[in-house]
Amino acid sequence: MEDGEQREWGAKAWTYLSSVRSLSPLIQCITNFVSMDLTANTLLSAGASPAMLHSPNESPDFTPQVNALYINVGTLSDTWLPAMELAAQLASKLNKPWVLDPVAAGASRFRLKACLDLISLKPTVIRGNASEIIALAKASFPSTKGVDSSHDSTDAVEAAKSLANSNGAVVAVSGAVDFVTDGNRIVGARNGVPMMQKITATGCAVTALIAAFVATDPSHAMEATASALAVFGVAGELGMETARGPASLRTHLIDSLHGLDQTAVISGVKITAI
Amino acid sequence: MEDGEQREWGAKAWTYLSSVRSLSPLIQCITNFVSMDLTANTLLSAGASPAMLHSPNESPDFTPQVNALYINVGTLSDTWLPAMELAAQLASKLNKPWVLDPVAAGASRFRLKACLDLISLKPTVIRGNASEIIALAKASFPSTKGVDSSHDSTDAVEAAKSLANSNGAVVAVSGAVDFVTDGNRIVGARNGVPMMQKITATGCAVTALIAAFVATDPSHAMEATASALAVFGVAGELGMETARGPASLRTHLIDSLHGLDQTAVISGVKITAI
Amino acid sequence: MEDGEQREWGAKAWTYLSSVRSLSPLIQCITNFVSMDLTANTLLSAGASPAMLHSPNESPDFTPQVNALYINVGTLSDTWLPAMELAAQLASKLNKPWVLDPVAAGASRFRLKACLDLISLKPTVIRGNASEIIALAKASFPSTKGVDSSHDSTDAVEAAKSLANSNGAVVAVSGAVDFVTDGNRIVGARNGVPMMQKITATGCAVTALIAAFVATDPSHAMEATASALAVFGVAGELGMETARGPASLRTHLIDSLHGLDQTAVISGVKITAI
Repeated sequence: MEDGEQREWGAKAWTYLSSVRSLSPLIQCITNFVSMDLTANTLLSAGASPAMLHSPNESPDFTPQVNALYINVGTLSDTWLPAMELAAQLASKLNKPWVLDPVAAGASRFRLKACLDLISLKPTVIRGNASEIIALAKASFPSTKGVDSSHDSTDAVEAAKSLANSNGAVVAVSGAVDFVTDGNRIVGARNGVPMMQKITATGCAVTALIAAFVATDPSHAMEATASALAVFGVAGELGMETARGPASLRTHLIDSLHGLDQTAVISGVKITAI
Repeated sequence: MEDGEQREWGAKAWTYLSSVRSLSPLIQCITNFVSMDLTANTLLSAGASPAMLHSPNESPDFTPQVNALYINVGTLSDTWLPAMELAAQLASKLNKPWVLDPVAAGASRFRLKACLDLISLKPTVIRGNASEIIALAKASFPSTKGVDSSHDSTDAVEAAKSLANSNGAVVAVSGAVDFVTDGNRIVGARNGVPMMQKITATGCAVTALIAAFVATDPSHAMEATASALAVFGVAGELGMETARGPASLRTHLIDSLHGLDQTAVISGVKITAI
Repeated sequence: MEDGEQREWGAKAWTYLSSVRSLSPLIQCITNFVSMDLTANTLLSAGASPAMLHSPNESPDFTPQVNALYINVGTLSDTWLPAMELAAQLASKLNKPWVLDPVAAGASRFRLKACLDLISLKPTVIRGNASEIIALAKASFPSTKGVDSSHDSTDAVEAAKSLANSNGAVVAVSGAVDFVTDGNRIVGARNGVPMMQKITATGCAVTALIAAFVATDPSHAMEATASALAVFGVAGELGMETARGPASLRTHLIDSLHGLDQTAVISGVKITAI
């Protein structure tokens, strides 16, 4: 029965959010310049502790201290790529969860190769839009337009399953419906509002939130990922009630994420197996 | 008759904004770290598609896919300058419009030379404040204080015409009145509110919006530039109605830009030939 | 009598804020990517003029033009560290005040050494949280968790006095109560609200505000520092009255800082000698 399943997922999502609030996991973020502000504020409002340290001079000392690593290639360059690779190697070696956001994976040969190299370092979770996930599964340039998704997320389910199976990662595809797969099971999350796509870096921010949720329960990355996507979407839905456009929605989304209570999460989360 | 002229400009500005919304031009932004968030959100709220990709490893693959390029030297460094120059060269070669924001052009010899070198790569539009445009026209250091304008924009009209004539660019000078010239004609846009200068990166953001408007009609860069300046100013005026300070004005400005309708644009735009 | 002392401090704080508004000091900011937006908007809303120029190619021309320098190591790297060191050397040589925010000083050996090297260049003021100040005083790795404070600021008073005495700097420790010491005297500022810690970069922003206050009166750095901390806290208290979470608090804090009047400052500032 779908209602029972949704309530079960709602209870699970609430448990994850509560754990983030009580444990305040330290998340190392190596992310793009555009998204740093929203990403840090998303993690803080959820109860996590963000740390934007990226230098290869620091990761050997710092990555061992963190609860999860978040890597986002948005404003990739040849100076930042080695920093991402070193931190990912450290996280994998230390058995810490790490999450990849392959922004605009198909935009250039350099970027596509960088993302594939990072994926070979065994991320726990990969979250992208349909175009990005398809580009990674195809592994060929050219494939897509810019950073926005030009495919519907349903198109990307097969690509996501293939990517998950070949790399042992949980793969999430954002869209009108968000899909999460471990290569075998698939769940769909139906939260959020369309206007969230008019706010820059909401995708980056929710991927950081996935890292925080996974940090509290690394052995259930699929459940934590679906829960983070749904919780962020519920915050967006509540924020939309009083928003007058994308900028006030951004403000209200973060306020709502900070204030979410058990009732709002349990009644709001819409996750179902597919 | 001025009223008729203004309504004509209002109708033109509405056509540009409608085109941005329907075509969603992809704008490559190589901009400063301070402004990335506001710039991306300004483009998204206007209906364009921003992409903050800057690496020289990517531009050969990516710049051919974009509809316009936006370069802003705010947080210039010797590692970013070659990225700007390569993208500008590609845009010029591919006959794609590109727009330059010469932030604080007169702040150092290095910066002034960088801006002049970029201008030699034939930007379609240059937008700055009076001090910046005067510094570029004088081409000598020292000339100005920091990043803010210490000249009135009327002082800069001659400098703007000279810069436009010697480089074939449309030149816009922001101030209490914004001027736009192609070296021959001059138009003035009288929109916006003074408090917009208390929000960081509003100048950067409107230059990105110019890139989006010009992307829809590259052969009329002067009209597109004046329209973008006026439309952004109208959004600021509407935002000011409910603002309680610079931070809420920033929020309301973006919300207003997203929500602008035909009536607000046509009745609000104040552009006249000078 | 404490009330009289507080009113005296309130009057002093109002004088500093008024000076910033009338003199609009130019503040060179070499700060982390996360904080640039909030830092610039904080300075603008207080009436100062921020300039985010960092390149070693520019500082020899630019630092002589500024009224104060602000350095923040948040997103430190080996490419930015020399830029920080050069600007700090120039400021010291030119006898201009400069202020250091040693974000996450204890997070890695590289960062700790970088902060200690910068401190050897004689900052006028150092502001950190308790963990950061303790890490600097101990000068040994490891000492602390991430970028957030895991010590109460009262624990750090001895560390702050020691740091101040050995380096001739004013040292400020942020916490539930903010402490400021020159190694001899100690004052406490009791403004602000806990939710400000849920907004990224509020610490960075208030350190920039310290630079602006000190710029107006470099020979009284301790008084200017305490005043800046208290004024920012008062803006937070006023912002909290209508905030619904961390994101709206951020908006209202900046709005309030812009709108602060004499009555609000004099009646709101809570500074006392300890």
